Amino acid sequence: MVAQAEGVNVDVDGRDARFVVVSNRGPVTFSRSGSEGSGEREYSRGAGGLVTALNAVLRHRRDAVWIASAISEEDARVAEEALRDGVPYEVEDLKVVLVEHEGEAYDLMYNHLANPLLWFVQHGLYNLPYTPELGDSTKRAWEEGYIPVNENFAEAVARTLEASAQEGEEPVILVHDYQLYMLPLFLRERLGDGAFISLFSHIPWPEPDHWRVLPEYIREDVLRSLLKADVVAFHTHRYARNFARTAHEVLNVEADEEEGVIHTREREVWVRPYPISIDPDEFKKLAQSEEVLKEEEFVKDLPGKLLLRVDRMDLSKNVVRGFAAYARMLERYPDTRGEVTFLAQLQPSRGDIPEYASYARAIQRAVDEINEKYGTDSWEPIVLSMEDNFPRSVAAYKNYDALLVNAVRDGMNLVAKEAAVINERDGVLILSENAGAYEELGEHALTVNPFDIDEQAVKIYEAFNMPDDERTRRAEVLRQTVIENDIEEWVKAQLKDIAAHPKWRGT
Amino acid sequence: MVAQAEGVNVDVDGRDARFVVVSNRGPVTFSRSGSEGSGEREYSRGAGGLVTALNAVLRHRRDAVWIASAISEEDARVAEEALRDGVPYEVEDLKVVLVEHEGEAYDLMYNHLANPLLWFVQHGLYNLPYTPELGDSTKRAWEEGYIPVNENFAEAVARTLEASAQEGEEPVILVHDYQLYMLPLFLRERLGDGAFISLFSHIPWPEPDHWRVLPEYIREDVLRSLLKADVVAFHTHRYARNFARTAHEVLNVEADEEEGVIHTREREVWVRPYPISIDPDEFKKLAQSEEVLKEEEFVKDLPGKLLLRVDRMDLSKNVVRGFAAYARMLERYPDTRGEVTFLAQLQPSRGDIPEYASYARAIQRAVDEINEKYGTDSWEPIVLSMEDNFPRSVAAYKNYDALLVNAVRDGMNLVAKEAAVINERDGVLILSENAGAYEELGEHALTVNPFDIDEQAVKIYEAFNMPDDERTRRAEVLRQTVIENDIEEWVKAQLKDIAAHPKWRGT
Repeated sequence: MVAQAEGVNVDVDGRDARFVVVSNRGPVTFSRSGSEGSGEREYSRGAGGLVTALNAVLRHRRDAVWIASAISEEDARVAEEALRDGVPYEVEDLKVVLVEHEGEAYDLMYNHLANPLLWFVQHGLYNLPYTPELGDSTKRAWEEGYIPVNENFAEAVARTLEASAQEGEEPVILVHDYQLYMLPLFLRERLGDGAFISLFSHIPWPEPDHWRVLPEYIREDVLRSLLKADVVAFHTHRYARNFARTAHEVLNVEADEEEGVIHTREREVWVRPYPISIDPDEFKKLAQSEEVLKEEEFVKDLPGKLLLRVDRMDLSKNVVRGFAAYARMLERYPDTRGEVTFLAQLQPSRGDIPEYASYARAIQRAVDEINEKYGTDSWEPIVLSMEDNFPRSVAAYKNYDALLVNAVRDGMNLVAKEAAVINERDGVLILSENAGAYEELGEHALTVNPFDIDEQAVKIYEAFNMPDDERTRRAEVLRQTVIENDIEEWVKAQLKDIAAHPKWRGT
Repeated sequence: MVAQAEGVNVDVDGRDARFVVVSNRGPVTFSRSGSEGSGEREYSRGAGGLVTALNAVLRHRRDAVWIASAISEEDARVAEEALRDGVPYEVEDLKVVLVEHEGEAYDLMYNHLANPLLWFVQHGLYNLPYTPELGDSTKRAWEEGYIPVNENFAEAVARTLEASAQEGEEPVILVHDYQLYMLPLFLRERLGDGAFISLFSHIPWPEPDHWRVLPEYIREDVLRSLLKADVVAFHTHRYARNFARTAHEVLNVEADEEEGVIHTREREVWVRPYPISIDPDEFKKLAQSEEVLKEEEFVKDLPGKLLLRVDRMDLSKNVVRGFAAYARMLERYPDTRGEVTFLAQLQPSRGDIPEYASYARAIQRAVDEINEKYGTDSWEPIVLSMEDNFPRSVAAYKNYDALLVNAVRDGMNLVAKEAAVINERDGVLILSENAGAYEELGEHALTVNPFDIDEQAVKIYEAFNMPDDERTRRAEVLRQTVIENDIEEWVKAQLKDIAAHPKWRGT
């Protein structure tokens, strides 16, 4: 099959490639109108960084099919119809295939394997003297959850290709994120060596010793599967390098860290960084939307200069230390009291996982203590919003004087990019050296070690007291950096590498 | 000075080398007899793995001087006398120089910098979403504790060499462990490039991303200092490799991981593993001592087969999960109830550090729960001893059927080696893949992932149910492995590398 690919245009621009995008969460969710759900089929398009990014892929490949999990009841009906008819469901410009999973299997994959275990290991969030406590329950989540869900996806990809493949077309399958690590292996079993498979991990890849926290069967099986892909992609050089090392040490394969290539007996696996980005125009448009303008009234009413953070409420985001640093600043520089408000927009997340519930309590406690200690009748030092209010976040993007992104570890952190393009106050970015965005934006930000409270306190103060010309210069170059490497560039870089890969070139 | 070294015997056996051993804890402590401390000067020789190991160095170099911190009041007097007289204090076969530190500086170094921060980072013990909270107090512990104590040591080494150096002699300075990382730099400032300096880190060296938990000034200054040494030594290949990577990534020096060499502008630094070991004869003799024979009565009285663990009570040792695994075994294999006793000899340690105090409580809670749940009138499932009773540990070494060493991470773990050489029951070693000892002993042990409770439960059961011939075979090869790479070999390997180092050879 490789030989057939020879005629393909080097920019992968011909019709000879059939693109399939696979991710756990899809671009649309379906529902029924009416109180009993008996009305017409409706849909809503999803938001969020990954969906935006994959939409950009689809703009480049209009014939691409997007395969994702059925989440709602109506999703499941759409899934069944697709199974019956053998064709993707078309919505606007999208061709969607939804995959229905057995409920318990999905729960085991999502809530027991991917989100606590892989997420925690890859972000380094465990308290290793005590957690995790791995064992038979882990094995069950793997065997009865993660594996069947991935098999299910592989089956859906194979069926979709079978129903739609045209003579001489090569499938290009772009698999996304840590819920689907076993997919490359299961796809090879069904599609053979000809298909071009890329797996993109959107979260950090840890160093080998840390990957070894996982039980042997997971640590080895995941790696063996990923090395069935032709490209394994990450947001940063550091993650790509960590992955190459991990594969080398755990599976004893030959890995060239510098070149980003792993050689297995069967194939050449390219291990590459493609820093994900945003659609700047989308945010510029959003910034002028009615909802955002309305929220801007609230934001502009906050007293003093604005320190902002916008995060999913995740243990990796370092919210508690961020508040501690702010309090340290208020303590150390009394002239800042009443002159600054810290707006924290924290979107609730994974509240069912005990570690997240106690993290939310720790956050609330920190806020209460600081507001109690420093607050006055006319000034609340921290304005905490634990709700999903995207328009308010965008309104705040426009108006911050300093943006705090101090993550313990973060795959990329798109907030830093989104905010930079629409901020109107030459706001200063305070950026953790452990955020993926650091590789691109670090030199234009005030960088911090996320574990150092005093350093963060000083950097926050510094941000507010930076000379205007330096603020302007930094804000401008940040904006330009994001605009120049936008989401289109992210897609193009990947397509270019597919076209250059020896597998695609047929050499 | 390098040129002068040319005439030196390649096995470093001539008198042309003057050896100085430096470690925080020394081989002797002094006191005064009598109730008021008014009587005669007395001393007691220290025990423990490092002291035993360094004694072995001194057996090879009888003229060597050992420089260590003054701990007791009488130590301080010995320190003052040495300062006055300019000669080391001689005790038995030892030449000792004690260094007096300012009390607060020592406290900052030991209790605020080395033991919580460096120990936690190097063993990966932090709960990173919450701890550490670095800041000005860290900087103070560094600047007013770690640095002055290291300067103090450097001064003592320089003075000692000045007072005792002979014409044509090259100093060889063997610096030990994580309390003294700044010593190579401070020694170079005083002694220049001629001195041969080795720094041995007896704890794990973490991967670069984890080293980056430290504030920039510590992470960089420590590395810059270590690269002033000619040899940087560790217990395992993994630590040596991690160190080479860390130096490469943080300081951007050229590091050859495979060869174990880092090239700086000034020198060739050898990064090498020398797995520390024990003196088997010492343990064979101990095993027959009266105190041990007496404790053996207690040990032999314990009902059923004996599962043993012997550890300092440290968060890195994984005591709680070990008990959980044992309970899982009792639950899963009811026939084991009453047929096994788990003796846990846990030496109290660092109780002043809050994390250690709560770990001790977690241990006690786990033991109480399990004994409550499974214990009977005639059988206590876990016999916990939280006291320092070395003779009892040695008695237990002789009599265990299975030894559990399940550390989260452990520099070497000498218990596995000590116990192997005197065990009389063909006891099975259950060994964490994260213990340094794993590189040498792993293939003869039942290895476990320290985070997997069920795997440990199964392995404990397997150890008790292993066919006799396999037990015998494994126990024999374990014993031989330890005996063949004993502490003498550890010293010889280091001396051999010094002789082979281009700096020593004068090339």
